[in-house]
Amino acid sequence: MGEFRVLEIKQSVFADNDRRADEVRSELKKKKVFLLNLMSSPGSGKTTTLTRTIEHLKDEFRIGVMEADIDSDVDAQTISSLGVKAIQLHTGGMCHLDADMTAQGLAGLETGDVDLAILENVGNLVCPAEFDTGAVKNAMILSVPEGDDKPLKYPLMFSICDVVLINKIDVLPYFDFDMDKCREGILMRNPNAKIIPISARTGEGIEEWTGWLRDEVKKWQQ
Amino acid sequence: MGEFRVLEIKQSVFADNDRRADEVRSELKKKKVFLLNLMSSPGSGKTTTLTRTIEHLKDEFRIGVMEADIDSDVDAQTISSLGVKAIQLHTGGMCHLDADMTAQGLAGLETGDVDLAILENVGNLVCPAEFDTGAVKNAMILSVPEGDDKPLKYPLMFSICDVVLINKIDVLPYFDFDMDKCREGILMRNPNAKIIPISARTGEGIEEWTGWLRDEVKKWQQ
Repeated sequence: MGEFRVLEIKQSVFADNDRRADEVRSELKKKKVFLLNLMSSPGSGKTTTLTRTIEHLKDEFRIGVMEADIDSDVDAQTISSLGVKAIQLHTGGMCHLDADMTAQGLAGLETGDVDLAILENVGNLVCPAEFDTGAVKNAMILSVPEGDDKPLKYPLMFSICDVVLINKIDVLPYFDFDMDKCREGILMRNPNAKIIPISARTGEGIEEWTGWLRDEVKKWQQ
Repeated sequence: MGEFRVLEIKQSVFADNDRRADEVRSELKKKKVFLLNLMSSPGSGKTTTLTRTIEHLKDEFRIGVMEADIDSDVDAQTISSLGVKAIQLHTGGMCHLDADMTAQGLAGLETGDVDLAILENVGNLVCPAEFDTGAVKNAMILSVPEGDDKPLKYPLMFSICDVVLINKIDVLPYFDFDMDKCREGILMRNPNAKIIPISARTGEGIEEWTGWLRDEVKKWQQ
């Protein structure tokens, strides 16, 4: 089991979250740290996808992970056992992270030796979409069992994400999930969204996803 | 396709939500209307479970359904086509319903001829748990693909629910889901929780669930 810290996050005092988010991003740019904000419903496979991502990229980038969770520390335990830096953010029941809470997390993670910082946001398709965390890119995971109608029901989340990973494609035969309908719904919300079907369990699609992420980190560090 | 209304819900002006919730409940008691608050993650099968529930109980009770959704009206369309009263609550991006918002919904539903009112809350395991809606009982659905660790991660939701439906048991063979571990986690959060494994798709367990609900409605109406 790896080592990780638990950090209690305080409520923000910043009225203007968007400005604070821009400050966080320019600070990250100066330090050449890429921050990915990873969002999804509970149980869509964020931690498993993250595990695969780390396995693929940890020899190329120095990775640090912030786990925002409501109570437990199961995710930080899993991640830290992979040999990357991990920190658990306790949000005190908050349903999202804003830019200043993220900045507290980045300070706790000590990003001086990190190229790629990943924020695993609270499992929630609603509130996290409303707050710019200061991340360079937003990613979300939609899993097959959740259904192909989710872009209709959670429009804001899909509209703010640069990339949508459609996870658990290994169980497609057991669910009524129409991939074309899902793609269409996502692109209606966000015509620029990159859509990548994956199975974090079998590894399918992980190459394409980590390829996208690798390119984005390199662009940011230039 | 059945008929249904769309109601725009206003932000509450009540500072004391718990008191407002008690008022809503005593009003319901006078009118002999049972209100069930149904919560879950996005995509865990609330609408399909509701469909099964209505099929089982619509000859015994006059049912009315309030669909709280962020944008679309797909759920209200589905429900109203079953021949029960349905109303779509537009929450303007809110991540939960509180007691007064629920009261607005009940007024819109016109419960004079309703025995069993069901609120399909916003798909979210965090915020809805924090607000008493005035419901007589709280139910939640956890689906197998979400994982058996959810009671560890969303403690409040599990602690306030009278009944937990574990849905999608027809796909148990395809997921690493430990039913005993899940039960243990739920009971740690709430020793009195009633746990019912179901498959809304195949109908398994629906008899037990609707039996529980039937008994609760009858108790309330006495």
